[in-house]
Amino acid sequence: MSDIKISINQINTKVGSLHSNTTKIVQKIIEASNKNCDIVCFPELSITGYPPEDLVLSDTFINNNIHALNQIIDHTNNITAIVGFIDKKNDEIYNSAAVISDRKLIAVYRKNKLPNYGVFDEKRYFSSGNQIITLNNKNIKIGISICEDIWEDFEVCKLQSDLGCNLLININGSPFDKNKKLLREKLLSNVSKECNAHLVYVNAIGGQDELVFDGSSMVYDFKGEKIMSMPSFKEKSDEIQLCLENKKTMSSINEYDKKFEFIEKDISINNHKKIVQRKKIVNSSTNEDILNALILGTKDYAEKNNFDKCLVSLSGGIDSALVTVIACEAMGSENVKAVTLPSKYSSSHSISDSEELCENLGLDLEIIPIMESHKSMLNSLENLFIGTKENNAEENLQARIRGNFIMAISNKFSWLVLSTGNKSEIATGYATLYGDMAGGFSVLKDVPKTMVYDLSNFINTKKEIIPKNIIKKPPSAELKPDQYDQDTLPDYNTLDMIIELYVEKKESFKKIISNKEIRKNISEEKILEILKMIDRNEYKRRQSPPGIKITSLAFGRDRRYPLASDHKYTYTDY
Amino acid sequence: MSDIKISINQINTKVGSLHSNTTKIVQKIIEASNKNCDIVCFPELSITGYPPEDLVLSDTFINNNIHALNQIIDHTNNITAIVGFIDKKNDEIYNSAAVISDRKLIAVYRKNKLPNYGVFDEKRYFSSGNQIITLNNKNIKIGISICEDIWEDFEVCKLQSDLGCNLLININGSPFDKNKKLLREKLLSNVSKECNAHLVYVNAIGGQDELVFDGSSMVYDFKGEKIMSMPSFKEKSDEIQLCLENKKTMSSINEYDKKFEFIEKDISINNHKKIVQRKKIVNSSTNEDILNALILGTKDYAEKNNFDKCLVSLSGGIDSALVTVIACEAMGSENVKAVTLPSKYSSSHSISDSEELCENLGLDLEIIPIMESHKSMLNSLENLFIGTKENNAEENLQARIRGNFIMAISNKFSWLVLSTGNKSEIATGYATLYGDMAGGFSVLKDVPKTMVYDLSNFINTKKEIIPKNIIKKPPSAELKPDQYDQDTLPDYNTLDMIIELYVEKKESFKKIISNKEIRKNISEEKILEILKMIDRNEYKRRQSPPGIKITSLAFGRDRRYPLASDHKYTYTDY
Repeated sequence: MSDIKISINQINTKVGSLHSNTTKIVQKIIEASNKNCDIVCFPELSITGYPPEDLVLSDTFINNNIHALNQIIDHTNNITAIVGFIDKKNDEIYNSAAVISDRKLIAVYRKNKLPNYGVFDEKRYFSSGNQIITLNNKNIKIGISICEDIWEDFEVCKLQSDLGCNLLININGSPFDKNKKLLREKLLSNVSKECNAHLVYVNAIGGQDELVFDGSSMVYDFKGEKIMSMPSFKEKSDEIQLCLENKKTMSSINEYDKKFEFIEKDISINNHKKIVQRKKIVNSSTNEDILNALILGTKDYAEKNNFDKCLVSLSGGIDSALVTVIACEAMGSENVKAVTLPSKYSSSHSISDSEELCENLGLDLEIIPIMESHKSMLNSLENLFIGTKENNAEENLQARIRGNFIMAISNKFSWLVLSTGNKSEIATGYATLYGDMAGGFSVLKDVPKTMVYDLSNFINTKKEIIPKNIIKKPPSAELKPDQYDQDTLPDYNTLDMIIELYVEKKESFKKIISNKEIRKNISEEKILEILKMIDRNEYKRRQSPPGIKITSLAFGRDRRYPLASDHKYTYTDY
Repeated sequence: MSDIKISINQINTKVGSLHSNTTKIVQKIIEASNKNCDIVCFPELSITGYPPEDLVLSDTFINNNIHALNQIIDHTNNITAIVGFIDKKNDEIYNSAAVISDRKLIAVYRKNKLPNYGVFDEKRYFSSGNQIITLNNKNIKIGISICEDIWEDFEVCKLQSDLGCNLLININGSPFDKNKKLLREKLLSNVSKECNAHLVYVNAIGGQDELVFDGSSMVYDFKGEKIMSMPSFKEKSDEIQLCLENKKTMSSINEYDKKFEFIEKDISINNHKKIVQRKKIVNSSTNEDILNALILGTKDYAEKNNFDKCLVSLSGGIDSALVTVIACEAMGSENVKAVTLPSKYSSSHSISDSEELCENLGLDLEIIPIMESHKSMLNSLENLFIGTKENNAEENLQARIRGNFIMAISNKFSWLVLSTGNKSEIATGYATLYGDMAGGFSVLKDVPKTMVYDLSNFINTKKEIIPKNIIKKPPSAELKPDQYDQDTLPDYNTLDMIIELYVEKKESFKKIISNKEIRKNISEEKILEILKMIDRNEYKRRQSPPGIKITSLAFGRDRRYPLASDHKYTYTDY
């Protein structure tokens, strides 16, 4: 039996900011060393931030990242550090983990499995590694792997187990979605049990454009039980002391010889008292997680793009109310500016409800009526529109005048505009391009309307922050008299189920119409119409601001559809 | 010596439109069969269209594509057809070429090399094939390959040559850029010579979102000489009759045994008279090619998205003038609507020059002044803006009011809005989001300003279509008095060189400032400022409409940069 003390650092990096990321890593290494830790580990690509995208295609960037690694090496005394960086060898580049011990780079593990699906494009950038790295000290043998290596068949981890590893360290840049935490827990439990090894899983935290990394770093014991969990959505460093039993190397390892090269390095371990610290396991609800993801994603998008204030346009509806609450949590209510831009079709409650919300949040509300501008623009179009029927031209004009006002205010004061459309609207195109879709960040882009209600009610559990009336009133764009969302859309419960099946699960029309829950309230024809709405509004989504991925499949780079296309062959059998 | 007659079909397909693509293929097969051809070949993924993107992730789509293939098989009499489709085997899917002979699928070649760089994401979708397919008839042996297989080390083609192939058929979905044709010609000449085999290169034509496939199908003889070239940017079917010499199989082929499986199939060849038809070689200038790419890209984007009319907003400047000429070529002048939206800062020549252009093109020009709307909106903002200095808020408001008007007109009449910004503006952010950037398709998105001049002069060579005054006047956004582009930007020659080096070639700051041509007119500090402008305006480009790829690296999926980021480490050594 041998003891080892490990410092786990779920840090918030910014993509490309080599200097600030490196400074943070060095500081954490020094702290861990001062706490007598043996190992200090950091997330995947922590030097460059994740995902660095096409920055990686610059030689200068790669060289600078190696320069940053060298600075870290210089600061690694009396401890072994595992740090994510980009390695270069013979013109190939690798998503790698540097193993640094006593001011020396003793090994580099190069990621073997490269994800190239969903939001991931790693095969665009990286080559696959073919070495298995293990670190050795008497009875302790540690296997290093990176993120995807631990998923699917976890070949790398199995091999490390066969080699006698009793501790696996897996470093990650694993983005949040609402089902991810449970998935990871099942996986980690299974891997640690199958590999008969303790497993340290360290993940990044922070918002990076459309992704939020939730941290939620964990340690599992060799029986597959979680023995430590770190908080979600918070930057945090913590230590765990593990007591490890010796394990024998399997004889079957030879069969892999051709595919992998095996490298073993000695590291030093301090003499610890034999105490296994069991950390308290933290749990959080799904609503809490989603809300925290939205808050952190918004906060980091603003901060990392150098905005200190933001602007929300309140319609009196639930979406803009929720965005305002999130904005206040993310940036502080003193940094949130609220406007409302009533038209002649705006209900009286749209203003009074917005005022009540602002009062609850301690915000001032600026009221800028758009009637005069609308009238003036319609006048200018009168000659051209003469003899035509009123259609969405006149309706959308109002939304776009609002877009103009908020962008003018943004340009004047350098405030980040948070747009307020939800996933159900963006899916069906029930939103005006350059109108309510205008903005720098689209907070609810991947939050379906039903989830908007859930989150709003969750926010109100302790205290009514979002006025009841806002939650209760039937959703309306208020672009013409007596207009309600449900005039053209099915009820949102049904709509969101259709979106989930069609968009997230890529189900066929046949499968969707055979879903009893969906068919309760909607005909086959209407379902087909919804699918076609989703298809033909891809062009609007292509021009929408970025927003935070929350579901298992978000619009954006998670879903790459052609514009000029005939989608029907994806859901109908021929 | 044996003769073979091949029908080459550079067809225009629409992504996802299985039925119309299949109908076209069947028709072409029947035509080729009637002309006594032995082989009829089609571009890469011609059944699904290229690139099908995430449509491929739908099982239903894959099944429908195989159903479509079966329909084609049923129509393939007395001829061997090579047709691009998606093959599925054991849950893996492949970018494939079906070899159909006499109503039978006799072989399937699965693409070996999958491009996953630039605009390509093939490893997201496809597995790599590991079979080498050859078709045999007495003295004729034909090797089949797909697009990327022929690039880099052309391993597949070399192997086919070693196997004794005297004819190589390579089917493509190869998008146009201004350097691509020359690159391809060098490549094909080299491959055919090195492989000592005739080479038939068939490419798709047509616009598909941001890509234009130029066709330009070619045939090279075994000495590396071009013996046939098909037109660029035109849908076309043509035949060539080749006289082939017998070739021996090399003995060295065994070493590849492990990597590839070798499959040979017999096909039938008609008895031809021994005549080698030498086809006329067609050449076109770069300006002609670029203009044709822009015309075809615009035409197909409109057509494939079911627009029959388009709308251009004329500023009196050269960009909107060029877009209008392209629009007239693409859609017919009777389908092009022109408006001009003067503000109080618009020069008198902005209207008169636009009128002259419209007269030359036979267009009516609708004049909608924006002064009243601008005044009305500024009034509404007066309280909020009190005590602030005029800045881009007031300027951009005008551009956004114009955006509103053109979108209202688009909504009213269902006309496709063509936006007019060029690559130099879009690179530096010298364009207003939701203002002049608003639109359905951004024709000049990848056309640098200096190329805008070249193309305009090229258009005017035979007859002055774009008024001289439009070409001569100094570029101006006319959003405030006496405003010119060169107040804030360097001269466009210098700017475009910087953009080419930094964006397309990913050069370091050091390399850019050491370029003598660039340094003639600009300081180091100013160059650094330009690079930072390019970096920080990524957020605008993310919300811009699609446009046609013309250069070797276009904004869009060709260049995937983070928004929240510190780009400086990509161009400065630390």
